[in-house]
Amino acid sequence: MHLVTTTNKVKENWGGKYFTLEFIRDPKKLVKDWKKEGGIVVHLTMYGVPIDKVIDKISQINSKILVIVGSEKVEGWFYYNSDYNIAIGNQPHSEVAALAIFLDRIYKGEELNIQFSDAKLSIIPQERGKKVIKNG
Amino acid sequence: MHLVTTTNKVKENWGGKYFTLEFIRDPKKLVKDWKKEGGIVVHLTMYGVPIDKVIDKISQINSKILVIVGSEKVEGWFYYNSDYNIAIGNQPHSEVAALAIFLDRIYKGEELNIQFSDAKLSIIPQERGKKVIKNG
Repeated sequence: MHLVTTTNKVKENWGGKYFTLEFIRDPKKLVKDWKKEGGIVVHLTMYGVPIDKVIDKISQINSKILVIVGSEKVEGWFYYNSDYNIAIGNQPHSEVAALAIFLDRIYKGEELNIQFSDAKLSIIPQERGKKVIKNG
Repeated sequence: MHLVTTTNKVKENWGGKYFTLEFIRDPKKLVKDWKKEGGIVVHLTMYGVPIDKVIDKISQINSKILVIVGSEKVEGWFYYNSDYNIAIGNQPHSEVAALAIFLDRIYKGEELNIQFSDAKLSIIPQERGKKVIKNG
């Protein structure tokens, strides 16, 4: 899964070495190649089918999933070449929020418990204040 | 609930007249006043208690809830004066995503079905393409 990460320092401290950030010159080629390789393409758009209606089907997909999140002006091509156009609410919203809710549904909330094995730092949850430990 | 809305045009077309955006000169006063009025203050922070452990308690709150989302440098004061410091995952993340997941837990996913009564436009969900209708 391609996801935008923040700075390398965050990645180095908190893990997640398999996250990469790439700028793609030709996003349509990416979509075509992805599908050729047997991958599934999901486009998150407020015009699509409500997530609740397709999440069961999506959850059963065993192929890799490319998630497209656009802004106001996504070309029609992406609507017609995605396997699923999925709405995280049929109203204007933050794309970051849409991606978060989509991943949350896919992972059934378990994403909140993920610990990256390559993390140098870990948090010990506190009711007040901050507690961070160095791993290993 | 105070939430940042986007442009007035979005609000006018898609409804949600009760969303307001205000810049606050003294956020500590806002917190103090909120609590004096019987409101509850929730601070979303990766250092806090995992959402899964407190969501049942939070869901039973009948008072108004002020949600604080900060960035890297939130003063300790807010940690000590919030009723709850809640982590949407104990790792660095998007604050917008954290707010989305928090609201999703509070509303049990039903927020995706909200229709604003003052919306001038509505979307008819489509598997491909866009369909928007004018209301009334």
